[in-house]
Amino acid sequence: MYNIKYYLDKVSQIFAEEKFCAEPAELYDPIDYTLRLGGKRIRPTLLLAANGMFGGDESLVRDAALGIETFHNFTLLHDDLMDRSPLRRGQPTVYAKWDENTAILSGDTMFALAWRYFLRQPTPRLRDILNCFNETAIEVCEGQQYDMNFERRSDVTIDEYMMMIRKKTAVLLAGALKIGALYAGAPDGETEKLYRFGIHMGLAFQLQDDLLDGYGDTAVFGKKTGQDIRDNKKTYLPLRAMQLCNASQRQRLADFFGGKVDDEEEKVRQVLALYEEIHLKPEIEKAIAEEFAKSIRTLDEIKVDEEKKTPLREMLETLNGRKK
Amino acid sequence: MYNIKYYLDKVSQIFAEEKFCAEPAELYDPIDYTLRLGGKRIRPTLLLAANGMFGGDESLVRDAALGIETFHNFTLLHDDLMDRSPLRRGQPTVYAKWDENTAILSGDTMFALAWRYFLRQPTPRLRDILNCFNETAIEVCEGQQYDMNFERRSDVTIDEYMMMIRKKTAVLLAGALKIGALYAGAPDGETEKLYRFGIHMGLAFQLQDDLLDGYGDTAVFGKKTGQDIRDNKKTYLPLRAMQLCNASQRQRLADFFGGKVDDEEEKVRQVLALYEEIHLKPEIEKAIAEEFAKSIRTLDEIKVDEEKKTPLREMLETLNGRKK
Repeated sequence: MYNIKYYLDKVSQIFAEEKFCAEPAELYDPIDYTLRLGGKRIRPTLLLAANGMFGGDESLVRDAALGIETFHNFTLLHDDLMDRSPLRRGQPTVYAKWDENTAILSGDTMFALAWRYFLRQPTPRLRDILNCFNETAIEVCEGQQYDMNFERRSDVTIDEYMMMIRKKTAVLLAGALKIGALYAGAPDGETEKLYRFGIHMGLAFQLQDDLLDGYGDTAVFGKKTGQDIRDNKKTYLPLRAMQLCNASQRQRLADFFGGKVDDEEEKVRQVLALYEEIHLKPEIEKAIAEEFAKSIRTLDEIKVDEEKKTPLREMLETLNGRKK
Repeated sequence: MYNIKYYLDKVSQIFAEEKFCAEPAELYDPIDYTLRLGGKRIRPTLLLAANGMFGGDESLVRDAALGIETFHNFTLLHDDLMDRSPLRRGQPTVYAKWDENTAILSGDTMFALAWRYFLRQPTPRLRDILNCFNETAIEVCEGQQYDMNFERRSDVTIDEYMMMIRKKTAVLLAGALKIGALYAGAPDGETEKLYRFGIHMGLAFQLQDDLLDGYGDTAVFGKKTGQDIRDNKKTYLPLRAMQLCNASQRQRLADFFGGKVDDEEEKVRQVLALYEEIHLKPEIEKAIAEEFAKSIRTLDEIKVDEEKKTPLREMLETLNGRKK
């Protein structure tokens, strides 16, 4: 039976074969650049794997795989512009390499190109598929807005944070899975389970990102430790820390995240030392493990042969393994 | 039989009844603001009128009318940001009233909301309709890119300019008409004629905008005369002027549009005086009349009862009447 590597390779092949260049070059060159930057291609891989799990015809989801990744890269392109981020995957962002207007308009066009991919393949459940894609897109926008709102607030709760990362990150993984299953003609109850599987996987995935920012090995993780701390980002780590702190610790943490410390590297060291004091790491590890467990339980409930679940189990293990 | 006022009123009613507010307010308030700013609502009116011409059920195109106008307003929102325009319809633009990031993300969300409207109503020709909408959207993005490219070039031809305004302006009018007809189940040949009718109408409409910038009555037109000249915009007027000028006039015009004149009001006066010298006004009036004539001829060819064409004839006359 298939394994996750089969689908990852398939996605690489699909992207290698696809042409993204067109006229005018000023519009499409940044799109081609963005879609060739790579990345893990998790969403199209999940879409293909979910389709395969329900015995779908692989040739019918090729375009949907391109569509979901094109949409994802559109959101990254506009997010990088809104965050004024100079780098993505070690390369200059479109905003930095070209300019703001290029990032706006090439991004808009990528959103429309994603739709072109989704519309290319006729399928009996087209309206369900497009509705799933579009409602996901709207939630991703809402998630990004909540993320920006939370930067300006000092009273964000963990529940609010989980709602935000569900919209910003988890729904697109869940949507990719559901869309793959819809193409395969899976029953509604099963597509919903797959969606919930994706939500918990997505939450675990994002919480792990939060964990790795504080505790990751730069060499393995590929990102510099403590960037969220430098950016005063209110991820799960500081939000949970606020609950565990005593009054004086809470004041120190609030000062750090209130931008009152000039030496950034010293700030990272001190915040991480405070996290040690309050034993924060096991707390977030527990939260991650809980989401992974929920994800596995939901996958267990799906009514298909056990062996057909192998690729998604492997994907979950791969994501879970990031922390090691 | 229906007249165009019937459809204009219908569109006003649809927008008055629709709710655009949702959570988070930071995302949806600018969307509600944009969609309530008004405007002429030409595109949804065309969509309804085309649907009515082919005997379509009006209740089935209500959402499509909302969708096409939401998309149009999304493009205006992002265009205003890219142009850094402070005002639209006499009111602050989203970019000016809120900020750049709000304009980016609320715009993205409006594009997705347009899709939500188009997906809301089941219809047998959904895929054709969505393809028409999406290919139109892609062309509008390409048109905006060409428009920005042309600002940096001094050798734009009239053919290139016509291609640009076809994409940036005409295809959305044409697409609105075609979509309305598709909902009514019109035959392919007729929807294509209607599309061509819309293209010529759109070109005439944009050329008239160019004319009015140079020769319009501010009190009637609602815009300040000569803004394109102040902005060095290479519209039909300067492009045609370049062809009519002698060598010394051409040099003067190139200097004006090369940003070499400091006193803006003096520049507007001198450019308009030069246009008088070379008898430019009848030239653009001829080009507009030709596009209107092509538009009328295409409408004549459409195989429906003459009286059913009344609303679209009235719309054409209204647009044509702008210059008087």
